[in-house]
Amino acid sequence: MIELSEIIQAKRLIADVVSKTPFVYAPLLSEKVDAKIFLKKENLQLTGAYKIRGAFNKIASLSDEEKQKGVIAASAGNHAQGVAYSARHFGIKATIIMPDATPLLKVSGTKDLGAEVILHGNNYDEAYAYALKYAKENGMTFIHPFEDDKVIAGQGTVAIEMLDKIRDLNTILVPIGGGGLISGVASAIKQIDPKIRVIGVTSKGAPGMYNSFKAGKAINSKSVRTIADGIAVRDVSEKNLAHILELVDDIIQVDEEEIASAVLFLLEKQKIIVEGAGAVGVAAILHHKVDLKKNENVGIVLSGGNIDVQMLSVIIEKGLMKSHRKMKLLITLIDKPGALMYLTDILRDANANIIQIDYDRTSTKLAYGDAKITIVLETKGKEHQAEIKQMLENNHYPFVVEL
Amino acid sequence: MIELSEIIQAKRLIADVVSKTPFVYAPLLSEKVDAKIFLKKENLQLTGAYKIRGAFNKIASLSDEEKQKGVIAASAGNHAQGVAYSARHFGIKATIIMPDATPLLKVSGTKDLGAEVILHGNNYDEAYAYALKYAKENGMTFIHPFEDDKVIAGQGTVAIEMLDKIRDLNTILVPIGGGGLISGVASAIKQIDPKIRVIGVTSKGAPGMYNSFKAGKAINSKSVRTIADGIAVRDVSEKNLAHILELVDDIIQVDEEEIASAVLFLLEKQKIIVEGAGAVGVAAILHHKVDLKKNENVGIVLSGGNIDVQMLSVIIEKGLMKSHRKMKLLITLIDKPGALMYLTDILRDANANIIQIDYDRTSTKLAYGDAKITIVLETKGKEHQAEIKQMLENNHYPFVVEL
Repeated sequence: MIELSEIIQAKRLIADVVSKTPFVYAPLLSEKVDAKIFLKKENLQLTGAYKIRGAFNKIASLSDEEKQKGVIAASAGNHAQGVAYSARHFGIKATIIMPDATPLLKVSGTKDLGAEVILHGNNYDEAYAYALKYAKENGMTFIHPFEDDKVIAGQGTVAIEMLDKIRDLNTILVPIGGGGLISGVASAIKQIDPKIRVIGVTSKGAPGMYNSFKAGKAINSKSVRTIADGIAVRDVSEKNLAHILELVDDIIQVDEEEIASAVLFLLEKQKIIVEGAGAVGVAAILHHKVDLKKNENVGIVLSGGNIDVQMLSVIIEKGLMKSHRKMKLLITLIDKPGALMYLTDILRDANANIIQIDYDRTSTKLAYGDAKITIVLETKGKEHQAEIKQMLENNHYPFVVEL
Repeated sequence: MIELSEIIQAKRLIADVVSKTPFVYAPLLSEKVDAKIFLKKENLQLTGAYKIRGAFNKIASLSDEEKQKGVIAASAGNHAQGVAYSARHFGIKATIIMPDATPLLKVSGTKDLGAEVILHGNNYDEAYAYALKYAKENGMTFIHPFEDDKVIAGQGTVAIEMLDKIRDLNTILVPIGGGGLISGVASAIKQIDPKIRVIGVTSKGAPGMYNSFKAGKAINSKSVRTIADGIAVRDVSEKNLAHILELVDDIIQVDEEEIASAVLFLLEKQKIIVEGAGAVGVAAILHHKVDLKKNENVGIVLSGGNIDVQMLSVIIEKGLMKSHRKMKLLITLIDKPGALMYLTDILRDANANIIQIDYDRTSTKLAYGDAKITIVLETKGKEHQAEIKQMLENNHYPFVVEL
């Protein structure tokens, strides 16, 4: 447990720089589960994630001599930006080690905050090892993303703000990657109001901390793979596991589909962009992974919003298919003049907007004289899709719906 | 001008129901223009838009007898939801007339708020005419979306909240459709602190109010067509034009590309979803349409967030192309075994991720023995795309980049 005084001290240190993000009621989500859901929007934080809290508190706590020698971190994500932003604030040098294959946008995003970025290693582990070596050789302070008391105390300030805003919370859901955020949040909560449940949420694609919690000892993941890249941590930190075993009431898991649906829900219904890692709490609520009492007050930490827009685009596209607002049909039709026009007439009558067409008559799977058409339609929902299928059947088109 | 007392009265009436949305500093946007930009996030309002303010104030002001007979509106958008939500709050009946072709989601979204939805007419004008007739026949109160003093007074509460939060604003940018929002905002501003500039922003695709302002008299648009559907108003209201001519300092226009870029900017950098109409103010800033003094304080009203996700998906896709994060190439290659593999080897060496391929050897434009390949790549920026093009040239592939 991190002492409450440490967290309150962190709160004072970060007060003038870090945003007090909104913590607000979410009516639609609440209606879905018969509880009162409040969202802590750390996606609207400076640098788009809570990580700046811990990084800022750590750097603020360094001696002048340490500050002068500069800080270093290994991260291609939210921690990198938190360290860079905080170092710039204090006018000190930040060096960030990222793996070689890091997307240019993440590199430039961190450089824009004034940090030097060094690309090194084939993966995070190699970048991490290099950063430790580099720190030692140059006398710099290495800022660990989660295994550090000052960092944890900084992350704990999220909980203080939540308790300040809503006085009668019953349950708090917190994403778990390395465990820095939940170690800080649970430390604060259990010292202020220990009857509030603190539940961690992990991605099934990164099960290390879940398995460790259930076993009561550290079990590293063999590999990690999840769209929630912000919590894709493979090795379990003994320090953070100890906090979690001591303070956290339960850990639950959500899968990739559940995370994607939560990202889309937050986008469509809450009008906010939340990254996969930030959406696991909402995924748990939407898919009824948490036992809730009627009308209990639930706080969910939306930890960050730094999702790659290409990933977001894929999540939207898949989501449209799943919610029956897009439909892909493979239709066989007789390859003669007018055949396609006749089909498009039917689709017009069905009020289905064509957004993509691919026409092929050379597939070996086709009878001579047949053509295959792949068509993507904008549709209005399940009933509308049933209607379209009925119209195609009535007109004797063989077709399959591709999912 | 709507009297300030009316707007303050509206503020008191809506206080317990309507959200006081955040009005917060936007660092990245501010850096781009050397001014201090603050965003009023009405996209995070209940029902996802400011419209509930006016609708609620209007309905709250009705007599018990009027309330009992119910209210009616013509709208397939934010006004419909504002009316439905407010009517439900007072436990009275709301009827919403929408054109026949309204997307199912908008119908169900309004029904979910307890309103009766009647589909009538081929377009908004026909739905509007029918709503007026229906209101008369049934003794219901018609709630106009913008040409109504109570509605305008309600919208003006946005300005009060902005002034309460930031005391030294110099300029306020407000989207203009029908003109209800800016009539209310400008009325409040010019009575409280008349030296604050109030600038309206319209879409070039709906130029009615812009042309009317410049001419000093009502000039309806011939037709309207814009991705900012929330401000796609064709006919100019004399009442609102009078307020605007009296109170508004200037009106500027932004085009479709500028609006789309603003929606994408807000999504990527601010982590919020804003609809086209809500993003015109940011579009004006991003594309330097407003003369700003160094370090002046600018408030921008983000009026709503109800954008169709299909539209959002198109904006993201086009935005990725424009910002060099996607690239579509048409490449001609010799149609022989291994040709495609050799090409994909080159692309792998260039670190370009293939996300779509279309292979055609039957185009009449091709020489016999040639094949055409259309390939979509994920790329890391302008330099990366130049690198890829250089590698294709070095390997003697004829190609064109499709935009």
